[in-house]
Amino acid sequence: MSKISRQKTNVVQVGTVKVGGGLPVVVQSMTDTDTANIAKTVRQIANLHAAGSEIVRVTVNSLEAAAAVPHIKEALAKKAIDCPLVGDFHFNGHRLLSEHPECAEALDKYRINPGNVGRGRKKDSQFASIVEYACKFDKPVRIGANWGSLDQDQLVRLMDENAKNVIPQSNEQLVREALISSAIKSAEFAESVGLSRKKIIVSCKVSDVQELVTVYRDLSSRTDYPLHLGLTEAGMGSKGIVSSSAALAILLQEGIGDTIRISLTPQPGGERIEEVQVAQELLQTMGIRSFTPLVISCPGCGRTSSDFFQVLAKDIQLFLRNQMPVWKKKYKGVEEMKVAVMGCVVNGPGESKNANIGISLPGSGENPVAPVYVDGVKVKTLKGAMIAQDFESIVNEYVRDNYGNGT
Amino acid sequence: MSKISRQKTNVVQVGTVKVGGGLPVVVQSMTDTDTANIAKTVRQIANLHAAGSEIVRVTVNSLEAAAAVPHIKEALAKKAIDCPLVGDFHFNGHRLLSEHPECAEALDKYRINPGNVGRGRKKDSQFASIVEYACKFDKPVRIGANWGSLDQDQLVRLMDENAKNVIPQSNEQLVREALISSAIKSAEFAESVGLSRKKIIVSCKVSDVQELVTVYRDLSSRTDYPLHLGLTEAGMGSKGIVSSSAALAILLQEGIGDTIRISLTPQPGGERIEEVQVAQELLQTMGIRSFTPLVISCPGCGRTSSDFFQVLAKDIQLFLRNQMPVWKKKYKGVEEMKVAVMGCVVNGPGESKNANIGISLPGSGENPVAPVYVDGVKVKTLKGAMIAQDFESIVNEYVRDNYGNGT
Repeated sequence: MSKISRQKTNVVQVGTVKVGGGLPVVVQSMTDTDTANIAKTVRQIANLHAAGSEIVRVTVNSLEAAAAVPHIKEALAKKAIDCPLVGDFHFNGHRLLSEHPECAEALDKYRINPGNVGRGRKKDSQFASIVEYACKFDKPVRIGANWGSLDQDQLVRLMDENAKNVIPQSNEQLVREALISSAIKSAEFAESVGLSRKKIIVSCKVSDVQELVTVYRDLSSRTDYPLHLGLTEAGMGSKGIVSSSAALAILLQEGIGDTIRISLTPQPGGERIEEVQVAQELLQTMGIRSFTPLVISCPGCGRTSSDFFQVLAKDIQLFLRNQMPVWKKKYKGVEEMKVAVMGCVVNGPGESKNANIGISLPGSGENPVAPVYVDGVKVKTLKGAMIAQDFESIVNEYVRDNYGNGT
Repeated sequence: MSKISRQKTNVVQVGTVKVGGGLPVVVQSMTDTDTANIAKTVRQIANLHAAGSEIVRVTVNSLEAAAAVPHIKEALAKKAIDCPLVGDFHFNGHRLLSEHPECAEALDKYRINPGNVGRGRKKDSQFASIVEYACKFDKPVRIGANWGSLDQDQLVRLMDENAKNVIPQSNEQLVREALISSAIKSAEFAESVGLSRKKIIVSCKVSDVQELVTVYRDLSSRTDYPLHLGLTEAGMGSKGIVSSSAALAILLQEGIGDTIRISLTPQPGGERIEEVQVAQELLQTMGIRSFTPLVISCPGCGRTSSDFFQVLAKDIQLFLRNQMPVWKKKYKGVEEMKVAVMGCVVNGPGESKNANIGISLPGSGENPVAPVYVDGVKVKTLKGAMIAQDFESIVNEYVRDNYGNGT
């Protein structure tokens, strides 16, 4: 469906999921439960996976967490949940894997942060030790650099070299270069340890939109490793959603990014799956992949004096989302359906005609009737207290008649 | 602050606000109260303006609404609220203005939808009649086309011409061209009626992200009218925020767009000002304009087993927003401040150093202390029940010492 031409990258197999090579952009996320708490972590992985996370990452930060990983994997298998698991390692990954090689075997991918793997001579040996497990168990690795944990040795080296230049680079440029070359050099080092080039995914995350755009454009031009793309520490509420969408939209539009994660800070008590929904909404509204029928609805204005249409838009959105677990098995292509819920006659009929199914509610002062359009043709006029239910019936019928073979 | 090079457009004066010509991208919004309800409409305009809407549009859909407009304007003036008001006209604008010329005089801009202004010969005369009021009262006009209310005569003409072509265009291309040429031809017609070119703003809104990108790139290349940019009928919840941010980010990054509106469907009972906040967050996170200090916060993971850092991130965000009405008068530049609230040691210290002020909370298994960084230097280590209050004091002190002259 997409007109975007993707940057060429290798294909990396992560469990049963392929990343890169122009294949569909993969949605992933990360748990925020204590990994050592097996039941809680399994429950959250199941939720994230059901919401659409095709790969899930867990932190492996302690011996208890490392010991839990094989049990998590097993519990998921018992539930018939096939979700590749990534282990996130910082500081002590080499030690955890050596004490719990069964963790190394159970995971589908390791994430190594080159800035958090040790200093000086220790860095190389500790990094190599993790990579050796990847080689031994035939696992892919993400080399995940982050400007919050930049390889300081690398930065100092670059600063020293820069000082000798006739026209020295700015600090901004230096940090950027340190980040990118930390990722690329670490990936090359992993290859020198014996890891196949086809087992490496790379990321260079920063928390500033324009920086991310600059960094990933550069990174993409310099390597054919598939790129894991995300704005790190995007923050809370709409600010996190806006900044992630803006940064990723610019890059995805240029064909950059093979797998994405949206790093939202959940509201206290908020839903972890929000980051998965946002990732899907981004890919779908950009026309890159489809997951769930989209609802187009107007913002309302002084013409829509009741909030009836807001309630209807919300109900329809919920109705569509709730049907999807069943629909997606029975009705192929239903995820591409567009439904319009419009508040008045200004753009209502037109927008409804552009959607697969649309309803144009009566604005204030209009006749209290709601024309319904199917594939651009007015098929019915609804009125009265049952408008919502009647409209849902029409949607149900449309889905049955138009997608898959219904079996 | 921005590195984006803006497309060249004319400058149009809307009340006391200038739009276009590379000037800061203007944030605007629209009321959803019944315009005839003066008290309610004034209250909402005041809220939208306080939230940051620099121009507010109201629907003028009835004689009662038209009669209310001068009273709304007067009530705002009494409250010392200087917010340019735009009247949104569809179908009957010519009649409303002729019966209530005092409405034409009170408004700061008219929005004319060329698809909803009448058919055939009537269209030109009705369109001209609104434009004549604009000339008489020296007001600017937005020619706002929308694919939900496309000029059908224009579309039919284009289809007839297209049928004669050796290689006919696709329907998609035709609709796009109908939309763009409807806006441009209407603007040229307004000029022929006597409206100055420097009084015209243009928009061509669609509800699909890729369509919007294609339409505005084309529109921008064909005219020097300032462009009002927005994804129409973006929808509800995160889907509306994501799709608007994605579409506008791609275009703003190319320097396209002189004023923006985010068309979110509010949740039932939701806040209308959300669309203003999203507009500001988009411009600010893209580095185009600054409005409120930004909070960078991590998504949390298995290392941050308590939700303490989520609560702190939320409290700090709220604290900053609540201070702004006072701060922005006293502390010049404070809106550019960056505050980091991080959940553990992985990226905490690094990200905190990148911000003006940052706090790295103790993750599980870490020492129960929270180092605080100011301009990249660790200045303090907080602990205990008062971390949030202590951190807010440090922020307060930083603002006092670093922005404006404090008077």
